[in-house]
Amino acid sequence: MTVTSHDVAREAGVSQPTVSRALRNDPRISEETKRRVMEAAQRLAYSPDEIARSLITGRTRTVGVVVADIRNPFYPELLDVVHSEFMLVGYRMVLLEGRVQAHTRDQVVPLLTGNAFDGVIFTTATLDSSVVVDLVRRELPVVLMHRYVEGVNVDRVTADNVGGGRIAAQFLTGLGHQRIGMVAGPANTSTSRDRELGFRSGLKAFGLSLAKELHRAGPYSHQTGYQGCMELMKQRRPPTAIFCGNDVIALGALDAALRLRIKIPQQLSILGFDDIEMASWESFNLSTIRQPMSRMAEVAVRFLMERIGQAHEAPARNQLFPTNLIKRNTTAPPGDSI
Amino acid sequence: MTVTSHDVAREAGVSQPTVSRALRNDPRISEETKRRVMEAAQRLAYSPDEIARSLITGRTRTVGVVVADIRNPFYPELLDVVHSEFMLVGYRMVLLEGRVQAHTRDQVVPLLTGNAFDGVIFTTATLDSSVVVDLVRRELPVVLMHRYVEGVNVDRVTADNVGGGRIAAQFLTGLGHQRIGMVAGPANTSTSRDRELGFRSGLKAFGLSLAKELHRAGPYSHQTGYQGCMELMKQRRPPTAIFCGNDVIALGALDAALRLRIKIPQQLSILGFDDIEMASWESFNLSTIRQPMSRMAEVAVRFLMERIGQAHEAPARNQLFPTNLIKRNTTAPPGDSI
Repeated sequence: MTVTSHDVAREAGVSQPTVSRALRNDPRISEETKRRVMEAAQRLAYSPDEIARSLITGRTRTVGVVVADIRNPFYPELLDVVHSEFMLVGYRMVLLEGRVQAHTRDQVVPLLTGNAFDGVIFTTATLDSSVVVDLVRRELPVVLMHRYVEGVNVDRVTADNVGGGRIAAQFLTGLGHQRIGMVAGPANTSTSRDRELGFRSGLKAFGLSLAKELHRAGPYSHQTGYQGCMELMKQRRPPTAIFCGNDVIALGALDAALRLRIKIPQQLSILGFDDIEMASWESFNLSTIRQPMSRMAEVAVRFLMERIGQAHEAPARNQLFPTNLIKRNTTAPPGDSI
Repeated sequence: MTVTSHDVAREAGVSQPTVSRALRNDPRISEETKRRVMEAAQRLAYSPDEIARSLITGRTRTVGVVVADIRNPFYPELLDVVHSEFMLVGYRMVLLEGRVQAHTRDQVVPLLTGNAFDGVIFTTATLDSSVVVDLVRRELPVVLMHRYVEGVNVDRVTADNVGGGRIAAQFLTGLGHQRIGMVAGPANTSTSRDRELGFRSGLKAFGLSLAKELHRAGPYSHQTGYQGCMELMKQRRPPTAIFCGNDVIALGALDAALRLRIKIPQQLSILGFDDIEMASWESFNLSTIRQPMSRMAEVAVRFLMERIGQAHEAPARNQLFPTNLIKRNTTAPPGDSI
């Protein structure tokens, strides 16, 4: 005989709606009642049939979060805060990885366009992404976080990457650097493009420019920073400072400097972007541009919840969070040249 | 009018079963055919109703993967290989985080015991975990990876953590260390318990033992290693070598040594466990005990697929993978004492 939520209600001495609310962790239900319902459900080995339930309510209480590459430590930290926010509103979070572009289109989209998800947060999207356009057309609630896609009218939560790039240029030139290199992230992402845009415009304001031979780009990885820094420092006239597209690239650049026995920050300044936890580790003490990840996650989840709860016609919002400089030990005025 | 898979089949010029197979990325369908089906589906804005489909087949082609804390870089690397393996067999992977024990029981279990998942891989489980016992009782296919739970007859894929601990003791004593400390992981996990067990038994074989004042334990985090190393090195008679419960703890210990201006490896040897990618970074060059993560992931996914495809009564398997020493630059014979 199948155990129903009514049986659980009787066992726990509460109403059936209370059982439903308790099981989806509704904040209106007290912790004591939740505990009683859970224990009753456990005693009866009650397992709510998720599929049947979602057919009735039309809601799955499940959201998808699409990330690029969870090996970039930025994403685990981001997912961590997003995950906590969804737990608070009683939603489960499903991680979808879209590292390979072809894979995103062929595998992730069919998953998202089924009825399995109430909404989705994209934390990654190449600039020409047709995936987001597709989902919006199908009226799936979507929030873009951290990156954005051009020409789509959809809720966005982003850090001011252009402003952050400008702060980087201002800070390094302010220290007295004139020959500054950049190891950027992937060219087809908005984060990378905006950081570089802001950086170039910031240099220009100080009568400087980014020399072509001092510019490298690649995936957001340790390897990109390591190789980029190696190449820049082997130039006839190496830079005295390098601005990196994100912190992981900067950590790779620091490792290359270590390999080349270049003293940081005396002989070379290195500046990152993001302020991941590792940036503050003793081994690195990386100066960086911080984006307020927790607050961004909070707003992204709120936007998505509002989208799920209301008509899709509401005008799209765009919340931009300021970035700020975190000075640590990898930046200083230019010193002895090597 | 609703677009069906038959419409897509007509549009693509293939049979309806071919459309289904192509959409779930069945390896028997050629890439060319998959492309044609995808394009036809896109032209018609076809979106297979996942829920209706799963009600018919009784399968969701979705597996859950429960992890502890994705901020420990071991997990993103592990998830990365597991994810790739599931992609190959046409399954989607859903990440469930169970950092907090209470949260695992109250939130993750109700999710897993609905019909949303065909099976689940646990990459984390405290030793007294009732969650796994519960799921096995409900006949949900389960594979335990990386850690195990006592008293449950269930497929297990683990590294030889006891053997790895023994290798660590053998290596450090072989270098000539006699006063050796340990900063272990959390006491309620099998990995941590087994590594320590092997380490103690290895020391004993060389007539040594782990002094109580040279033993610390905590979560698998940078902070645990940092604080543990700080405390051990401030002892009246500090150790000349420290074995760490995992690589992240070891990186924290290295940072503490840096802070204390203790030279590695001349004044102190530090040995990790896992061999995560960061261990090989220039900044760390961490000596460690490696577990063969890719091969373990491959077998775990194969086990789960076999469980999903057959009766639950098949006897449980237990595949143990050997661990091995990776010598880098953080270990050496004991030198100048500090």
